[in-house]
Amino acid sequence: MAKILALTGGVGGAKLALGLSKILGPEEVMFAVNVGDDFEHLGLHISPDIDSLTYALSGENNQELGWGRAGETWQFIETLGGLGGEAWFRLGDKDLALHMRRAQLLKDNKTLTQATAEIAAHMGIKHTMAPISDDPIRTMVNTANGELAFQHYFVREQCKPAVTGFRFEGIEQAKINPAIKAWLQDCDGVIICPSNPFVSVAPILQVPGFKQAIAHLPIIAVSPIVAGMALKGPAAKMMQELQIPTTAKAIADQYEGLINGFVLDETDAQSIGDLTLPAIATQSVMVTLEDRVGLARECIRFLDTLQSK
Amino acid sequence: MAKILALTGGVGGAKLALGLSKILGPEEVMFAVNVGDDFEHLGLHISPDIDSLTYALSGENNQELGWGRAGETWQFIETLGGLGGEAWFRLGDKDLALHMRRAQLLKDNKTLTQATAEIAAHMGIKHTMAPISDDPIRTMVNTANGELAFQHYFVREQCKPAVTGFRFEGIEQAKINPAIKAWLQDCDGVIICPSNPFVSVAPILQVPGFKQAIAHLPIIAVSPIVAGMALKGPAAKMMQELQIPTTAKAIADQYEGLINGFVLDETDAQSIGDLTLPAIATQSVMVTLEDRVGLARECIRFLDTLQSK
Repeated sequence: MAKILALTGGVGGAKLALGLSKILGPEEVMFAVNVGDDFEHLGLHISPDIDSLTYALSGENNQELGWGRAGETWQFIETLGGLGGEAWFRLGDKDLALHMRRAQLLKDNKTLTQATAEIAAHMGIKHTMAPISDDPIRTMVNTANGELAFQHYFVREQCKPAVTGFRFEGIEQAKINPAIKAWLQDCDGVIICPSNPFVSVAPILQVPGFKQAIAHLPIIAVSPIVAGMALKGPAAKMMQELQIPTTAKAIADQYEGLINGFVLDETDAQSIGDLTLPAIATQSVMVTLEDRVGLARECIRFLDTLQSK
Repeated sequence: MAKILALTGGVGGAKLALGLSKILGPEEVMFAVNVGDDFEHLGLHISPDIDSLTYALSGENNQELGWGRAGETWQFIETLGGLGGEAWFRLGDKDLALHMRRAQLLKDNKTLTQATAEIAAHMGIKHTMAPISDDPIRTMVNTANGELAFQHYFVREQCKPAVTGFRFEGIEQAKINPAIKAWLQDCDGVIICPSNPFVSVAPILQVPGFKQAIAHLPIIAVSPIVAGMALKGPAAKMMQELQIPTTAKAIADQYEGLINGFVLDETDAQSIGDLTLPAIATQSVMVTLEDRVGLARECIRFLDTLQSK
């Protein structure tokens, strides 16, 4: 296996991405990142999934919090709240610098891809983190309380409103990032990292032409649901609200017709019999760096067995 | 003496302003603030002189640094520099919140006066801090190296280039703040705080119609030059470069025809004989709050004696 495209959303996906980056070089793996969570806030362009990956790959992720940047402080946001400003989105002092830098680069007519590369270079990241598109895609969450922009649902409302569906504003007009298109010319396989299928992976897959562009490749997905629970984020809650069983199998079903193999956690090994496609069970809960690298190795090995496709 | 307008620039002027605010209520003193130092930076509107006054009046000024906000940290600007962003203007994490809040208020079509009032209210300030104008005035410094925007001269170049003159961009079109105009309807006197006459006070005085609007009032100025030195900032260096003696008398000469009385420091008491207008010598170096209140009291007493004008 020589050249992989890994699709990734937030913190969970970024863990496997880090594992992949430790065993595959920048010429061997590229990360295609969700931008549906992006939003404009306080005059800044915030790309939470790109940032989660940036902090993970640079070793700057905040391990205590499980999100955001290491060594973070909160003087800015606390002061802003005291002045009557919008403080619901917890921008750390260091994290804010990244958003400000990105805003300046975008203002200087750089694309999101270029801005991401410029920031990555300053953070010592060698691998390419490619937003799935440089065009705006904005995840809108349909809820019992009406439609909410993703961050309003996710952060401001703390995922409380019951979800009824999703809409990806702008996705019909979005073009696949040219860097990803070029990578797919001689790509050998795709790994869907353990990210939320509804709000992290779907806004990648639904970019016009993307599914067709990867259809000829072996594609595996790693379940973000383990033992009926989401390790992080609202995936399980969403599944309940959407009347979908909160199982690894239900995740595989979401990708039916697209994926050729499925990776589930060893605690869900008994579900393999329910699946109609090749699957492996392995330790997918990633606590240490070794866990991340181990899962990455398993994924590549598995993908290799599917190469015959 | 019932109603005073105090003209003020940066940190030096703000010290006397604080003293005045301790002995005069919000109906008795209004502060007219220089905006020539203002600039747009990182998508924010920064008003250094309004901010110095805001921090002074709210007790939030940084006493260790002598500028900026108390309890400040620098995570944002250090991180921004590490990402290749512009870090020459040292924005503290807390200070940044104020600029961000102001930027949002201006974006919501508030005037600078309204934005200042909104921030002041959140910081517990009862007195009115009125920018001399809501229209943009931008101090440009003519130097041996060419013309520099004020903050480029002051912060980025650390006042190193020799000054040859000044230009206040936009001042011909600037209208006096309506709140100041209204205050002047029944104002009893004007105090020019110990601020730089060239770059803090001149861009207030030269707003079209302002000198005429105060001409009928008793006006005193407090020397920012003590014993041949500026207590803060580049006033003395500028005077040398402009071939002006670095004396309190030379400051009085800058205001010739406008002021009716002059306040100099007790160490310069011997200069009173050189002046052709009423003057007092008093302790003008303000280290403690008592010093600030003491000088404020002296100024008001002195202004009272000039009321007959």
